[in-house]
Amino acid sequence: MVVAIAMEAEAMPFVEHLGLKLEENFFPNQAPFLAYSGSHNECQITVVTNGKDTVFGTGVDNVGTVPASTATFMTLSKMGKDVDLVINAGTCGGFKAKGAEIGDVFLTTASANHDRRIGIPGFVEYGVGMIQSTNTENLAAAINAKHGICTTSNSLDHNEDDDKLMLSNDASVKDMEAAAIAWSCKLFDTPHFGVKVVTDIVDGDRPSHEEFLENLGSAAKSLQAALPKVIDEVCGKGHVEL
Amino acid sequence: MVVAIAMEAEAMPFVEHLGLKLEENFFPNQAPFLAYSGSHNECQITVVTNGKDTVFGTGVDNVGTVPASTATFMTLSKMGKDVDLVINAGTCGGFKAKGAEIGDVFLTTASANHDRRIGIPGFVEYGVGMIQSTNTENLAAAINAKHGICTTSNSLDHNEDDDKLMLSNDASVKDMEAAAIAWSCKLFDTPHFGVKVVTDIVDGDRPSHEEFLENLGSAAKSLQAALPKVIDEVCGKGHVEL
Repeated sequence: MVVAIAMEAEAMPFVEHLGLKLEENFFPNQAPFLAYSGSHNECQITVVTNGKDTVFGTGVDNVGTVPASTATFMTLSKMGKDVDLVINAGTCGGFKAKGAEIGDVFLTTASANHDRRIGIPGFVEYGVGMIQSTNTENLAAAINAKHGICTTSNSLDHNEDDDKLMLSNDASVKDMEAAAIAWSCKLFDTPHFGVKVVTDIVDGDRPSHEEFLENLGSAAKSLQAALPKVIDEVCGKGHVEL
Repeated sequence: MVVAIAMEAEAMPFVEHLGLKLEENFFPNQAPFLAYSGSHNECQITVVTNGKDTVFGTGVDNVGTVPASTATFMTLSKMGKDVDLVINAGTCGGFKAKGAEIGDVFLTTASANHDRRIGIPGFVEYGVGMIQSTNTENLAAAINAKHGICTTSNSLDHNEDDDKLMLSNDASVKDMEAAAIAWSCKLFDTPHFGVKVVTDIVDGDRPSHEEFLENLGSAAKSLQAALPKVIDEVCGKGHVEL
């Protein structure tokens, strides 16, 4: 299975926990993406991160849909049918109107975009790009996670247009990669879902970036607690059993 | 050289003009992207389009940054150093404040994003993601094109947040792919620029999608007139001569 994690700080504790090793030549050497592989309970696991920005000289994590879709596409293109499942793990904003609280673990039921407004028939639906996740009813019960739709954009904040589309997407959580990872998975017909831990409340009073930075540490811990449980539950099962 | 064109209707007249042939196994068969190759005046030319949407069942062109970056990355990853230049050709919105008129041909001097607002130090610059295009001073003079910065988002329309960032990007034209294509090119250190024909006026009175649909035909003709001239000028020259 592949675990796609945008940010290095989110990925490394999990990589170390599983004792995965960096695969030097997994991606072309021009790619910033990184792959860590190993086995766990008879499961082959590859964690893929989007790596650090070298293009703009910022050195920050390559967040957003462009590196996410590209890294996932490259991974599936290389590994092909060896990938039975893609799990997209990371932090997110949560909607209190949907019962989200900081630290909550959500499994995605679907993903969609809220920053692709293309007001031409056909292109409207393409822009939204709703993709169903693999059913994870049993998994959610087993690890005590919530369920909901993840809405994706390339911005950490959100304006009125975003709010309208996030509502229309019926989103419980908001992130910056899920819909793009789902797009690549869908092209390869690879089962996939997201494990998203809430760092900030989207429909609350505080700016996302403040709350995000404040809660990143505790949410990262929550993610690190949840991810091994997910892996233990998922390992050795077909996606229809999830 | 590679010519990246998002929309099939924009690409096909050019493909037919040059007599390029579809390369059946250029991309993995799960990819929607298409590659047409051939030679022209001793130049090897590959036109890459993003293909049609099969994921959401709309059948429309795969517009936007996600397919654009992925298709370009896959292309450069496959062709490597055989690609001396990537030209991103397509339609765009133009800013009358920057002298843009419908039908104008612009060569990009740089590209940047206006829908990636990430209010955390370092991530701000990453989100904007300004990338310089290859210098095309001689080319612009030779084909009588204008010069300017292209600002990219995944929406055809634009709201107040977009307006602020497009202004701050000092954009002459606005599209939905340039910054993503530039990102993949920059990773491979491949010289690149955009050839963009204006279909609608961004800072005018009419909604983009109305004007876009109305002028797509004439702008497509303008693009078809400009592209062969670009190729004839560029063929056989190093990018430093452009």
